[in-house]
Amino acid sequence: MTETVVSSATKEVVIGFERPFVIIGERINPTGRKVLAAEMAAGDYSRVERDAVAQVEAGAHMLDVNAGIPLADEPAILAEAIKLVQSVTDVPLSIDSSIVDALKSGLAVYKGKALVNSVTGEEERLEVVLPLVAQYGAAVVAISNDETGISEDPDVRFAVAKKIVERAADFNISPSDIVVDPLVMPVGAINTAGRQVFKLISRLQRELKVNTTCGASNISFGLPNRNGVNGAFLSMAIHAGMTSAITNPLHREVVEACMGADIMMGHDPDCTRWIRRFRETPAPAGPDSSEPGGRQRRATRRRRNA
Amino acid sequence: MTETVVSSATKEVVIGFERPFVIIGERINPTGRKVLAAEMAAGDYSRVERDAVAQVEAGAHMLDVNAGIPLADEPAILAEAIKLVQSVTDVPLSIDSSIVDALKSGLAVYKGKALVNSVTGEEERLEVVLPLVAQYGAAVVAISNDETGISEDPDVRFAVAKKIVERAADFNISPSDIVVDPLVMPVGAINTAGRQVFKLISRLQRELKVNTTCGASNISFGLPNRNGVNGAFLSMAIHAGMTSAITNPLHREVVEACMGADIMMGHDPDCTRWIRRFRETPAPAGPDSSEPGGRQRRATRRRRNA
Repeated sequence: MTETVVSSATKEVVIGFERPFVIIGERINPTGRKVLAAEMAAGDYSRVERDAVAQVEAGAHMLDVNAGIPLADEPAILAEAIKLVQSVTDVPLSIDSSIVDALKSGLAVYKGKALVNSVTGEEERLEVVLPLVAQYGAAVVAISNDETGISEDPDVRFAVAKKIVERAADFNISPSDIVVDPLVMPVGAINTAGRQVFKLISRLQRELKVNTTCGASNISFGLPNRNGVNGAFLSMAIHAGMTSAITNPLHREVVEACMGADIMMGHDPDCTRWIRRFRETPAPAGPDSSEPGGRQRRATRRRRNA
Repeated sequence: MTETVVSSATKEVVIGFERPFVIIGERINPTGRKVLAAEMAAGDYSRVERDAVAQVEAGAHMLDVNAGIPLADEPAILAEAIKLVQSVTDVPLSIDSSIVDALKSGLAVYKGKALVNSVTGEEERLEVVLPLVAQYGAAVVAISNDETGISEDPDVRFAVAKKIVERAADFNISPSDIVVDPLVMPVGAINTAGRQVFKLISRLQRELKVNTTCGASNISFGLPNRNGVNGAFLSMAIHAGMTSAITNPLHREVVEACMGADIMMGHDPDCTRWIRRFRETPAPAGPDSSEPGGRQRRATRRRRNA
């Protein structure tokens, strides 16, 4: 029963097979957000602050922080953003960059045990990122692609994940500190993407015994009503064994899909978290209906006829 | 690859392992709906008509019709309701009653191949309902309880379903004409209800090779924000192998959970049905974001750094 422990200065979050699903807020990422990118490059972190607070209020258990801005000083900006986010929230962070110097500067200022996002199966990444993860005693997201790119064959992606876990062991990084991202492809382009990734997630849990995460929103790329697609995907991925995701907690569908799945998996005993979150919401009802429960009505009727 | 074929006078619907999920609208049911019950008892079917049309417009592929009103002439009312619903919609119907005479009168007026809802594993039900199903060449919902009640043990419920399938064979009713209802218990009361029923659904598909259905709304009985719970349940049950459900298509969460799950299972090639349904919906977007896709943004950034 693998558990990945990450922390801030004051708070611990555990990603695990028998734990509530961990939502990692994806919003602090300037890629595709021109206004945010311009503000961050100019040293204005007010939107970062608002995004951090809003995502935690909406249900994020961790936040991903990315500062990938073209031609900007990413290591400096990422460190600033991390310091700021840690000053306004107490959730653990995922330090997200493909530039090793940015990961270094982020880790240097981070308080707690971070999740480094990410290492791939590419040799040059393994050789520089894994020592860094080991040095800081961090956890790491392992993306299952390598020099040959992203394979459409789930067996190849499994093999890449296995290789990363084995290489990490050489640096004394435990499998419990590795969260594998099996890579979610857009289902609009690759119709088998859903079933494929569910199988891969199950196999990663069963055989490699690692926690998993993914960029969940990618599943719906190019489709209308993306939040609806994302919600269905998340509930099903949790049923398959996924234990965390980088996604957008500001969308009601996303939070309901994850928290509802927690109930179904038995990871929200007595539905305490669900009830706390939703008890203020008035129950939807038709013009002449108090309860929408079909089978419950049947049971009532049965007794009458018994 | 089991396929259950039901039909109206003009339309065929197939419930099957490799088919889109079949939503059976639950609304035409006076239990718990006092106004509807009073109207139906008084011969006013205007609300039945509106409920029928609205559910089909919202995405129901079939409709359940129930006329269980205390002290009323259920056989006569059920037959009237069925004639009316068949005059305003073309979807196949599930004829829903625990009174055998009502099933008889409903089947007598029904045009097409109906789904009889339901038989249980109780001897007295098997002996009277199965001959009726055989006589009319109908399909039947088989509920996995018997004289001893509803077992909390999934193995017992599986055994009851198996017994019904075997007994049906004595009447020349094929397993493909039996849709098993594994019985969904309220997860607020029985915390293991979700995982248990998912396992049972998988086993019914794999070992007994039958289609499945359920009164999906029952899962959320007693909880706030029931539609959110129902949506997560439905997506996960479809991942486990469930092929139809009696539920409320007027709730957006329900339709999105089922249609989104169809995409993930590969049962909506090229997402054609999803796109047709949702392309008019404006895409939700933050103040400075055009696309919420986290991993897609990563891919863009990757290329920049490559």
